Amino acid sequence: MRLATIRTVDGTRAVRVDDHAAVELGHADLGALLRRPDWRAEATAAAGPEHDLAGLDYAPPVPAPEKIFCVGLNYRTHILEMGRELPEHPTLFAKFARALVGANDPVVLPTGSEQVDWEAELGVVIGAEVRHATSEQARAAIAGYTVVNDVTARDFQYRTLQWLQGKTFERSTPVGPWLVTDAEPGDISCEVDGDVVQKADTADLVFDPATLVAYLSQLVTLVPGDLIATGTPGGVGHARKPPRYLAGGNELVTRIEGVGECRNICRAEAWRG
Amino acid sequence: MRLATIRTVDGTRAVRVDDHAAVELGHADLGALLRRPDWRAEATAAAGPEHDLAGLDYAPPVPAPEKIFCVGLNYRTHILEMGRELPEHPTLFAKFARALVGANDPVVLPTGSEQVDWEAELGVVIGAEVRHATSEQARAAIAGYTVVNDVTARDFQYRTLQWLQGKTFERSTPVGPWLVTDAEPGDISCEVDGDVVQKADTADLVFDPATLVAYLSQLVTLVPGDLIATGTPGGVGHARKPPRYLAGGNELVTRIEGVGECRNICRAEAWRG
Repeated sequence: MRLATIRTVDGTRAVRVDDHAAVELGHADLGALLRRPDWRAEATAAAGPEHDLAGLDYAPPVPAPEKIFCVGLNYRTHILEMGRELPEHPTLFAKFARALVGANDPVVLPTGSEQVDWEAELGVVIGAEVRHATSEQARAAIAGYTVVNDVTARDFQYRTLQWLQGKTFERSTPVGPWLVTDAEPGDISCEVDGDVVQKADTADLVFDPATLVAYLSQLVTLVPGDLIATGTPGGVGHARKPPRYLAGGNELVTRIEGVGECRNICRAEAWRG
Repeated sequence: MRLATIRTVDGTRAVRVDDHAAVELGHADLGALLRRPDWRAEATAAAGPEHDLAGLDYAPPVPAPEKIFCVGLNYRTHILEMGRELPEHPTLFAKFARALVGANDPVVLPTGSEQVDWEAELGVVIGAEVRHATSEQARAAIAGYTVVNDVTARDFQYRTLQWLQGKTFERSTPVGPWLVTDAEPGDISCEVDGDVVQKADTADLVFDPATLVAYLSQLVTLVPGDLIATGTPGGVGHARKPPRYLAGGNELVTRIEGVGECRNICRAEAWRG
């Protein structure tokens, strides 16, 4: 089942994206849906007004998660090829909801940064409240997967030891187009203007989704709608020789087999279309 | 003017804390009040039901800020005495709202950490939406000041390069008791069971409140209720020889002259009173 939040002339709507149409679920967005304990059954059964698939305007699946956790250094192959040891604990940092954009929205390249980079990531969306979760509870608390690009201003990221300021620029982070509730994620890839710049297998994560949910739930209560961006594989622009960064007009495609695809045009902050 | 959010049997209430009583402002909490453009005039004029000052049960002034930014390495004297150079940019990290507790609530020492430490800080609360703020706009966007203790699990903070996981444990961070709208903050201090462990002048900040607001607003829109914890001076327990950490039963007092005081008892997570 694919669940999305779409923008309509009357505001956002949570929808189930079927093969023939998007069907309204009776909630303003997926955040509201996921807060209902029976959300899975409700979404399966819903038969509200329908929207043509062509021209759907996707908001981030959960437009304003209470929490967005991001993970660094989580692809085994990439860590080993860099000559590092596998980490014992996940590297965690945060992002604020105002950083998110939908699957086809412009990605805003912030004024002041000359080094905006891509980071294709598997996104995990929480579907139940958990705290101190066992592995089994953690698995059950995952509503499903989505596609994230943790677009990063490297110059700001590395101004200080803490990465936050390079990670939470307004309208920088594509998420979507939907939440897939029953798929196994496969290969993840990132393309810039048609060049494949990242490609990896999401099964190569050091800390897999359920492990991350269990770990995070030791820190704080996870609640429906919370988003975990599980880390990016090798191939970021900053590590290339010479480095490569995103520029206005670039098309950024972030794809995970079995999950979906975001396709975003990069725009300088000052750009007016 | 001192503005707070108190807990009553009928839920939380935004109040003005006058010398003789706490006066209700007609909003559930200060977050709701601050979203009104005329909040200052409204709070000044309000004459709702009154509560005795004795026995007020303080929630965090804004119980669920959209964003909590924290600053590291921001006291000039402490940086220089450590032999470091003054930083060019503020070190920024995040905290989630579930970490907050009120001015007299228990501070929960999380299971799994043996190194919970204090960090007395001046808190800045945002009172107007700003983006790319000038210095003047930044100053005007500050609703006022509050007291924060950015209680930190050092063992978790230093598990990886990113500090978040030591910084956002549930119910770890006292804030309050109120927001002061018209005071100059003076000395900041922290006491543990009566021992003064930190003492500094809030005027010693490298990046002062308005500078921080202007800087943060380059990254993302700041909105009413957002909280900035502006960094802690020297004297944390982890840097002592031998180190000293918080233990169940400790009384943690965090005080800023001209602003207010939090007084919290530390409790192991498993503790049941």
